[in-house]
Amino acid sequence: MSNQRQSHDFSPALPTAITLHAPPNSSIDKYPSKSHAHRLAAQLHVTNGLVVLAATPAATYPDSDQPVPFRQDRYFYYLTGCDEPGCYVTYDIGKDVLTLWLPAIDEKRVVWTGRGSTVEEAVERYDVDEARYIHGTGAFHSSSAIRLGLPQYLEAHLRQCWNRAAGNESCNKNVYVLSPERVNSIYNPSSPETPLLASASRTLEASRTELKNAINACRTLKDPHEIALIRRANAITAAAHTAVLRNISTYTNEAQVEALYTATCIAQHAKQQAYSPIAGAGPNASVLHYGANDEDFGSREVLVLDAGCEWHCYASDVTRAIPLNTAHPGEWASAEAAGIYKLVETVQEACIAAMEPGASFLGITYMARRMTVDGLLALGILKGDKEAIWKAGTVMGFFPHGLGHHLGLEVHDVSPVAHPPASSLTTCITTSSPEILPYQLPRSFNFPLPTSSSSHSPDPSLLHPGMVITIEPGIYFNRFLLEHFFLSNPTHSPFIDREVLDRYWRVGGVRIEDDILVTGQGYENLTTALKGRGMREAIRGGKGGEGGEGDG
Amino acid sequence: MSNQRQSHDFSPALPTAITLHAPPNSSIDKYPSKSHAHRLAAQLHVTNGLVVLAATPAATYPDSDQPVPFRQDRYFYYLTGCDEPGCYVTYDIGKDVLTLWLPAIDEKRVVWTGRGSTVEEAVERYDVDEARYIHGTGAFHSSSAIRLGLPQYLEAHLRQCWNRAAGNESCNKNVYVLSPERVNSIYNPSSPETPLLASASRTLEASRTELKNAINACRTLKDPHEIALIRRANAITAAAHTAVLRNISTYTNEAQVEALYTATCIAQHAKQQAYSPIAGAGPNASVLHYGANDEDFGSREVLVLDAGCEWHCYASDVTRAIPLNTAHPGEWASAEAAGIYKLVETVQEACIAAMEPGASFLGITYMARRMTVDGLLALGILKGDKEAIWKAGTVMGFFPHGLGHHLGLEVHDVSPVAHPPASSLTTCITTSSPEILPYQLPRSFNFPLPTSSSSHSPDPSLLHPGMVITIEPGIYFNRFLLEHFFLSNPTHSPFIDREVLDRYWRVGGVRIEDDILVTGQGYENLTTALKGRGMREAIRGGKGGEGGEGDG
Repeated sequence: MSNQRQSHDFSPALPTAITLHAPPNSSIDKYPSKSHAHRLAAQLHVTNGLVVLAATPAATYPDSDQPVPFRQDRYFYYLTGCDEPGCYVTYDIGKDVLTLWLPAIDEKRVVWTGRGSTVEEAVERYDVDEARYIHGTGAFHSSSAIRLGLPQYLEAHLRQCWNRAAGNESCNKNVYVLSPERVNSIYNPSSPETPLLASASRTLEASRTELKNAINACRTLKDPHEIALIRRANAITAAAHTAVLRNISTYTNEAQVEALYTATCIAQHAKQQAYSPIAGAGPNASVLHYGANDEDFGSREVLVLDAGCEWHCYASDVTRAIPLNTAHPGEWASAEAAGIYKLVETVQEACIAAMEPGASFLGITYMARRMTVDGLLALGILKGDKEAIWKAGTVMGFFPHGLGHHLGLEVHDVSPVAHPPASSLTTCITTSSPEILPYQLPRSFNFPLPTSSSSHSPDPSLLHPGMVITIEPGIYFNRFLLEHFFLSNPTHSPFIDREVLDRYWRVGGVRIEDDILVTGQGYENLTTALKGRGMREAIRGGKGGEGGEGDG
Repeated sequence: MSNQRQSHDFSPALPTAITLHAPPNSSIDKYPSKSHAHRLAAQLHVTNGLVVLAATPAATYPDSDQPVPFRQDRYFYYLTGCDEPGCYVTYDIGKDVLTLWLPAIDEKRVVWTGRGSTVEEAVERYDVDEARYIHGTGAFHSSSAIRLGLPQYLEAHLRQCWNRAAGNESCNKNVYVLSPERVNSIYNPSSPETPLLASASRTLEASRTELKNAINACRTLKDPHEIALIRRANAITAAAHTAVLRNISTYTNEAQVEALYTATCIAQHAKQQAYSPIAGAGPNASVLHYGANDEDFGSREVLVLDAGCEWHCYASDVTRAIPLNTAHPGEWASAEAAGIYKLVETVQEACIAAMEPGASFLGITYMARRMTVDGLLALGILKGDKEAIWKAGTVMGFFPHGLGHHLGLEVHDVSPVAHPPASSLTTCITTSSPEILPYQLPRSFNFPLPTSSSSHSPDPSLLHPGMVITIEPGIYFNRFLLEHFFLSNPTHSPFIDREVLDRYWRVGGVRIEDDILVTGQGYENLTTALKGRGMREAIRGGKGGEGGEGDG
């Protein structure tokens, strides 16, 4: 250490280098961001241009000094595998150079919060060609070669373009920026003649859409590294669900379930949940995104536990409907609860079995809803002519959400944009956040053959190897939904047997959800949490079987 | 239910009333927001004007459908006690009317997320004079009297002002808005002649500052309801710390500590932490806001657990330094660890004992630093002339943060603005987020007498009954801090005995923190988590005494 420093001289001693190039073959076991960059370039169909993505910046709440919980920008992560705040990444498509830009180490903050990666550490940790500091070489590094920062790098790129072509519009066309406001916050051209990155620019907006669609298309098909992360998230989630099963017979309140589930994940170093855990007993099981998780079980019969952790920003999404029964733990408390579980289980198993390349997800959804109508008719909850019920859409009163969604960096992961644009028939799979849509049946459905494998953009209505999609049928007895929109509506009320229904309010709701990987031949279920018979055995204190096929 | 509804007619059936007035005496056991409004009016020294505060809106992450975890705006909460998103509150100072404005119930979302309060529920739950919907009466309520929404209410207020005075500036002077952008997002005057709420207005900015300072002054002195909430948060936190103590001898990794601590809070329905829990062993204990919590204990000797939950938006903030010792659980693993704990314990007890009305917090901080120097000299870590060490500020290498901060709706709660503005001498208490400040000793210190009790703004440098302040001395052996700023600096290096210091790196860090209420006579320690001897007994499996005075 230099002994020349004055008292309270906080000038940085780190870093020891400004730019480091990754050694060859250093990408083994790293998140494959360089491969993602190549896929992106192919998807954009261009041989030149600069992609610029920004990480989520560190932030505090308004009028507060408390930090907002950090959640990395998913597009940035896809091209870096870097979970640090305030970074940028550039990908020069023509030169094939992926550069991670890091904030300077703030030595005054190290004793408070530790610090982010140095450029040396970054090229070791991440699959990038080089790492640099956003603001370039500091004055204290007279021995290092002067390296430009990101603002100068951007300026050079834009100026080159400016010299070749003319005008901002044409240059912005060459730059793909997802969050112009984040880039502009650090971009200060050195001279007024330099082209600006005009965030209001029409061409920039167009290239933003193009970039987003291209990354979405890439993200839809998971590579082995991504699948391994989802698998790991599922393994931890399964352990947490199992812990709940082994203790549920001693619990009396939803909060205990959330507590043990969460603790089991944290103890396995999965601190982030992919979404707020849902632990809803009885009527709360019928609120799809219930989150208070603070009510007593009392005499309720079913607990819906919809909870999945993240692993390195990749989600799992797992739902189990668990029998509550103080007298006979592991048994369904009523024939009604057992019947609804059995029906949902049967639907889920049929849907999972239908997952294969080329299958239409909409077709599988259609099958799920048809089976649900059949089952509700068999139980006597629905009555009347099957096709009339189908046409009225009464099934939406009991199964009011989509069958599933993509899963990856988001729990409701992105879908590729359809070319041609998705028709209403494909909304089931292209809508990541399902809504109660006005009920609409497809006029016909089929399982089309896969499109050509050379296609870069998978047809979003068909299944392709590498897609990970949840299968989550459910049946609910949500009093608000049924009373306000179905029982009071003459289109639906003749098809619902009110007397039978009255026996089913006690069930609340049942949903069973697994994460399904579409493989070359068919599917693999990435979710290993116990269900069916295995789940019930675990509650009774037995070992718990695998999966629990066919015996809910 | 009406049977007139069409299929998929989602027109709202709720609410059954638009405005409800609270019945008299309904505020018992409610969060005392009306009393807070009265305190605010007194603090503003005006008899007329309209206060407008906005709740945190519900939001999703950029380019994602995932909701941002909701955290209520603390200023809004102070005037409502309402933890629901997207609301507003107005307080008409002249008429003494506190109105809570609620978003309309979105019936299509009820099956997804449940719903917020109706106006009927709101006047029951919250201590407000009336509750209304932001957008007023819906067309479906032909039988109810037409009630105006918030935009019309604001417009009427501004127009009244406009008619009396003239111009936007003068009217904006009469409106106290904390977040003009949130208010403008719903405020659309019906005619171009209506005055605008100009967020860029200089008078609006001035009234914003005035409002914020006035609420800050109110928030600094806690009322009995607020103290009860902090006490409850502390009770849950104490139970969670105790659970950790009882299990720590079986644990091998920081993640297990965070898991059990968090689970214990959640199981007691405290889902929100006041800040990210810190569970740092060995060197991690010397990173003040460490948060990874994922390393093995190995042979480390001290675990710093700095973790406190929230209860109804009120914080607790508790730190314990816990002995790690596989051979002899509950004993300090080395004389060095025991010595540092004992020193910090002694300093903390002396500081707590000095907490009383009229005392100067800066004076107590001064005492803490003097005692720390004495202790480090006694241990041989520091050497040389005591006054020379003091003058150099070398103590900042071992105790680099403030002694404490206000606690309330924020873990680093607000402080009143000093009148006259705080001198550098008072930064210890007015800076809620302590930094490593260039070391500065007060030229003198004393314990001034309390200022007149009729003062509305407590002198921020002196303690007043109702303040809740943390006392959290610490001693750290942070290699980065010491090597970069002290050992390499000739101002400090002669005072540090490197050989002795080398025996202390193993300790990592020790911090002990309690939440102290200043009472009329002295203080009350709101923190009940075990420390000292009681803590060590709990680790050994004993019952654990109270507090552990004098025997670390």
